[in-house]
Amino acid sequence: MIQIFPVKGLPLVVEGTDLSREIVRAAEAMGVGIMEGDVVVVSHVVVSKAEGAVYWLAELEAGPAALALAGLTGKDPRHVEAILREARRVVRVRGEVIITETRHGLVCANSGVDLSNVGEGRAAALPRDPDASARAIRRGIEAATGKRVAVIVADSHGRPFRRGAVNVAIGCSGLEPIWDRRGEPDLYGRPLRSKQVCVADELAAAAELVIGQASEGVPAAIIRGYRYRPGEKGAAEVIRPREENLFL
Amino acid sequence: MIQIFPVKGLPLVVEGTDLSREIVRAAEAMGVGIMEGDVVVVSHVVVSKAEGAVYWLAELEAGPAALALAGLTGKDPRHVEAILREARRVVRVRGEVIITETRHGLVCANSGVDLSNVGEGRAAALPRDPDASARAIRRGIEAATGKRVAVIVADSHGRPFRRGAVNVAIGCSGLEPIWDRRGEPDLYGRPLRSKQVCVADELAAAAELVIGQASEGVPAAIIRGYRYRPGEKGAAEVIRPREENLFL
Repeated sequence: MIQIFPVKGLPLVVEGTDLSREIVRAAEAMGVGIMEGDVVVVSHVVVSKAEGAVYWLAELEAGPAALALAGLTGKDPRHVEAILREARRVVRVRGEVIITETRHGLVCANSGVDLSNVGEGRAAALPRDPDASARAIRRGIEAATGKRVAVIVADSHGRPFRRGAVNVAIGCSGLEPIWDRRGEPDLYGRPLRSKQVCVADELAAAAELVIGQASEGVPAAIIRGYRYRPGEKGAAEVIRPREENLFL
Repeated sequence: MIQIFPVKGLPLVVEGTDLSREIVRAAEAMGVGIMEGDVVVVSHVVVSKAEGAVYWLAELEAGPAALALAGLTGKDPRHVEAILREARRVVRVRGEVIITETRHGLVCANSGVDLSNVGEGRAAALPRDPDASARAIRRGIEAATGKRVAVIVADSHGRPFRRGAVNVAIGCSGLEPIWDRRGEPDLYGRPLRSKQVCVADELAAAAELVIGQASEGVPAAIIRGYRYRPGEKGAAEVIRPREENLFL
């Protein structure tokens, strides 16, 4: 049996907040604590705020590309400027939607630059190196508790063929993000041919069942009882290399 | 707190197996039972087997298109014949991979026609109407237990931009598959602009953390403690209409 606990009662996160310490404190205050083998999923927005990966819109000057795209989409030109600074390239534009490939290689709306939950006049970007963010939070939790854990930094992404966003792992540390089951026998002993499961994304999605992204103020979740495969690969491993990509 | 229980101890499913009865029985035998508001996630392969949505490869004659695609991909021509019969159109072909749009409108590998966990010489297709399958299982569980539940029929799909497959809801009954949060206030009171969450897919992904798709024989999961929004829309609602699709 797997349990998913919301992490409640964190203070409002500002630049410099020690997230690992606050998560451990909140988990203890809830009577849940941290146990060996827990997976801690943290919403990227608090990671970005703690790391200072936040734009003040008033400090941004929209260049010609941002002005043109803002005209097409109806977005604030300074928001678009931030989106372009975080992007390697623009992938699709239609209606209000700008889809880019981010500096990390993620394909998502607005380069992940979000005006929600960050305060008036500000925009939260994605963490510069989400795998490093996950690693730092993991080390902090392990140092504070003496328990071995895995950490996922998650963001909510749209999908090309399906409506609605789902949470995915943009950073991880301590677990193999992809479980390669090729060659294992099926129910009838036939070897599985093509089975690779992105468990990091499934854990991120499961966590969003308790992580509130609106006014609830639940920026993290603890998943207990899932036997992950330990590993040092990050979520960068999950990004499909361009040459494998059949849809871009 | 959310709990996810694997449903273990189901008999091997054959055409005509009453899945709702077997799931209720197994849940009771495990001491978990079915409770008001549970979400029961069932792997499509047992639904397909119970409904007889299974091909005998020996009974299939590969037509010219199947032979050509089999030559390109190295797949069994009879498997390709089944894939084409389940498809509206072929979307991409590369290496061993055939991506189609299924009769339901799902974009996935092999039209979801799977040679695993179905026995030698057979191939499991997707259920003909997965929302109807979910509805029938839900009604069976509700009639047997007197508890109101939601049911999701799930399959594991690859994604264009990310490696590894994740479980998604191809059928559902009893819950709103997409939670539309636009207009709700964020942490700072700013209305959310674009927040629609595909909770049906997040529940399906969470369930796969306990559903074994290889030799474990865990074809279903019970998710307890998630307060879904009741509704009668099916998972067909999640399929992005072609005119909204920026990548096909």
